[in-house]
Order: sequence, then structure tokens, then C-alpha cells
Amino acid sequence: MKTLRFTKMHGLGNDFMVIDAVNQAFDPKEAPLAAWADRYRGVGFDQLLVVEKPTSDLVDFCYRIFNADGGEVEQCGNGARCFVRFVSDKGLTDKKEILVETAGGVIVPKLLENGLVTVNMGKPRFMPSEIPFVPSSDEAADALVHIVLVGLESVPVSCVNIGNPHAVIAVEDVDSAPVGRWGEAIESHEQFPERVNVGFMQVVDSRNIRLRVYERGAGETQACGTGACAAVVAGVRLSLLDAGEPVKVSLPGGDLFVSWQPEGEVMMTGPAETVFEGELQY
Amino acid sequence: MKTLRFTKMHGLGNDFMVIDAVNQAFDPKEAPLAAWADRYRGVGFDQLLVVEKPTSDLVDFCYRIFNADGGEVEQCGNGARCFVRFVSDKGLTDKKEILVETAGGVIVPKLLENGLVTVNMGKPRFMPSEIPFVPSSDEAADALVHIVLVGLESVPVSCVNIGNPHAVIAVEDVDSAPVGRWGEAIESHEQFPERVNVGFMQVVDSRNIRLRVYERGAGETQACGTGACAAVVAGVRLSLLDAGEPVKVSLPGGDLFVSWQPEGEVMMTGPAETVFEGELQY
Repeated sequence: MKTLRFTKMHGLGNDFMVIDAVNQAFDPKEAPLAAWADRYRGVGFDQLLVVEKPTSDLVDFCYRIFNADGGEVEQCGNGARCFVRFVSDKGLTDKKEILVETAGGVIVPKLLENGLVTVNMGKPRFMPSEIPFVPSSDEAADALVHIVLVGLESVPVSCVNIGNPHAVIAVEDVDSAPVGRWGEAIESHEQFPERVNVGFMQVVDSRNIRLRVYERGAGETQACGTGACAAVVAGVRLSLLDAGEPVKVSLPGGDLFVSWQPEGEVMMTGPAETVFEGELQY
Repeated sequence: MKTLRFTKMHGLGNDFMVIDAVNQAFDPKEAPLAAWADRYRGVGFDQLLVVEKPTSDLVDFCYRIFNADGGEVEQCGNGARCFVRFVSDKGLTDKKEILVETAGGVIVPKLLENGLVTVNMGKPRFMPSEIPFVPSSDEAADALVHIVLVGLESVPVSCVNIGNPHAVIAVEDVDSAPVGRWGEAIESHEQFPERVNVGFMQVVDSRNIRLRVYERGAGETQACGTGACAAVVAGVRLSLLDAGEPVKVSLPGGDLFVSWQPEGEVMMTGPAETVFEGELQY
């Protein structure tokens, strides 16, 4: 029987069991992750975050992300924000910019004075083969907007890959947008061979958008971090939003701030909350 | 800012946040129960259990049950088992039979040597007005089995109230029983004016049943404690099960043992599990 200390955290409702494996022995392969992820008989979480010693002196921590089935994930924006709050709140570091080794490469998240966390989400990609997306034969591959047919309706979408594929649709009003109907149809549309996340963006002004996202395989969700990034990138490319400035993205689950300069990396800033400290036997 | 220690427990998947209000100050009226009940941004639970000092020297504890909306509940069989494990594991008592004051009256749950807990669920009631149930004009009010029409099908049901209303149907095989179709139709059938929980019972032998329950307002659930009691009571009345002996009830979420002697009280025995110890600020 082992005793394990953990912290339960969330970023806009995307929730995590976080384990300090620097100061206590922990092997994810020996842990009953599916049982712990159970929301009725376990701790309950979307993903398990494990903070380990780095394998190199050049970085501060190694940070690993596991799904309930034991599969390891490369990156998670909401999780990275929680990771930063965790190592700071636990006194594991006093740095504000932290060099972190992940399965997806080194990231440099940053804890701000106001408690929010900024994460570098990498460079977006736009070419159809990178989304992946199959444009109509009469469309230019590098068009900013492609037309997708939903029944008899022509829907203009901007395609962005930011670790996963997104189709962003500018709408007059997110509240009345056909998120369920268009989302379902476009998510599994034949022009998106690996399916796609569908964002509905209402541009309030050049620094503010409202966004609802129909997530691939999940339907509409409360707060999709990569969806917020994709929407701001699409809005900047369409000259609807200011380049290089923080754009406030209001999602049903809360707000994120995203900034992007063409050719550059997407920076996403948002909250990370500690819910409780826990201890279990296994 | 207050610090609160709590324990997360479950009985066959029905889960609880349990608070020792004997050794720490706690006022349920001041607590953000809905936020704590949230399974993504909070602790996550079906109900909050609070252990308080009794108002009388004649009993050992006062035990209160709250829903996420702050409403107080009279009784919960799965919760009572967790309560007993909690006061025993925390060393709040060394008694095995505990006198407990609840909003529904005094109960005397008992911790067994094997760690299971027995709870007295009270006397069942059968008269149509007590269920409540409106029998057909050609049926005797005290009939053991009433016929309810679902479309063109005649379904024989046994009616039992054990704190809440149940209609129990004896079936050949629970796996192939039309739990969804009949459950939905009977749950809101006009002959059950306050609706009803619908149990599908397969009698394996006189000490073993398999049971699936379509719960009022919830659909099929993993483990309905009062449904297990109602099924055994109905089976004893129909001479299908042994009176006064523990009958093993195999539910999808796990096993309970129920015994009932006609005219007597229903005794239910089952597990209670501790998941983790927690601490939060509010």
C-alpha cells in the first residue's frame, strides 16, 4: 500500500489530477489511472499531470500528460497553465519563466503577476495538407477562406492547424449561430479527412471576440484552448483582429487572451485554479 | 478564508463528500455546495454528508444529508453506510452499532467484522394510497400483483413503497428485459401519480436475484439501494425468495444483501469505500 499526495486543479473547467513526482516516488505505469479518473468511484479528472525531474540540466522540469487509458499526450494548453501554477504554489521553483521538457518538445510557460499563465502554443499551419483539408478544385490552396457546403448552404471557413485541425467560421452572433447543425455537419465533412474542430467566432471589435467551439468527437464544449488560438489566428489573417496584440476570447466557460503576429508563435494566456489538496492509498 | 478537511467516499458508485463537523467548525448554510458538487471545477459528489454532535445524549451522532442545491434529504441508504465507515475509520466512536439522529428519525446502522455496513431501511408499505398507485377498478387494492398496460402488453407489477415508490417486475432474464422501453413507460404511467422507480428482477434461486432499476427521473442507474430492498420485499411476498434470510442482490454496480421478514423492517447490507482524504480553502 502506497500513499500518494496530489492536487486537483482546473483551467476553465478542463480538470487535472496533478502529482509532484520530484518529492515523492511515482510511476504512472503502476498507477490505476482509469480507476482514479472515474468521477464517482475515483478522484475524477480529464487528464493526469506528472511533474518529474528533468533528464537534462538545461531545463527545469519534465512534465508529462496522461489520459485515463494510460496513453501519453503531447500537449495540452489548459494543463500547461495548471502545471505552472502547481510548481510555483508548491515552491518547486521561484522562476516565473520555466523551461519545461514535454513529449511534444520544450515549452516556456510564464507565470504573470496577476496569477494568469501564458503558454506558447507554437506556430499555426495553413496549407490544406497540413490541416488536413481537401479544397474544391476551383479554389486556391492558400485561400484565406474556403467554401464548404452544408446541404444547400455555402459556409465560408478559415482552416488552421494549431496541433489539431480547426475550421473557423465568422458569424454575426454566436448566440444564434447554428453551432449544433453546422458543427456536426462540418466536423465529419468529407473535405476534412481527419475530421475537424469547428469554431463560431463573433468579432465584437479588433481586440474582442466571442467564441463557441464544436469539438471533434465531443460536441460543443465550455472552453477549447486550441479553438481560441485558431479563431484569433484566422481573425488576424482576415484583418478583423489586431496582429501582435492580446485579443480577449470570451468562451462559455470563461475568458482566454490570445496574441499572434503573422509568421510567429501563438501565445495564449489564461487562468489555472487549485480546487483541493488530496491524499490517497493505492 | 477557511480550511476544510473532508473525505471522499462512495457506496456502489453513489458518491459523497463527508465532513467531520464534530472536530472542525462547519456550517452547511455558509458553504458553496453547488460549486463543490461540480465534477470539473469542484470536488464532485452526489450528496454532502455532515457528521455533527447530537442534540441529545441518547444518541451518538447527528447525521445530515445535503443535495448540491442546498436542500436537506431525509435518508440515503448508500450514504448511511459511508457515514458508519467514516465515524469508525476516523476513530470518532469505537461502537459497532451506532445510534444516529437524522432528519428522517433515529437509525441504528451497524458495522460488520468484514467491513460491510447494515442499515435498517424501515418498514415497507403496500396499500395503493401509500405507494401511491391507482389500481384498475377490477383489481383488489391488496393484490400482490397488479396489471399495468404498456401499449398492448400487460405487465404484472408488485408495488412497494420503501421511502420512495417502486414497481417490481419479475423477468426471466434481466439482460434481455426491456428496461428502457417498459421503464420509461411505467415510470410516468398515469396509474402512478407521483411516478415510480421500476425494478426488473431475475430470481436466480431463493437467496439470489439479479436486478436492474430504471430510476424515477434518472433512467437506468448502476445501483439503487431502495430498489434492491423493494425487489426482495416483493420476492418474499410472492414466495419466490426466503423470508428473514439475506438475499444477495446483484446490481450492475455491485452487490447488496437484503433481508426482510413480513411485518418487519428491511435490513440492507453493503459496502462503503473511502476514495481519498482532501483539504480545501473557501
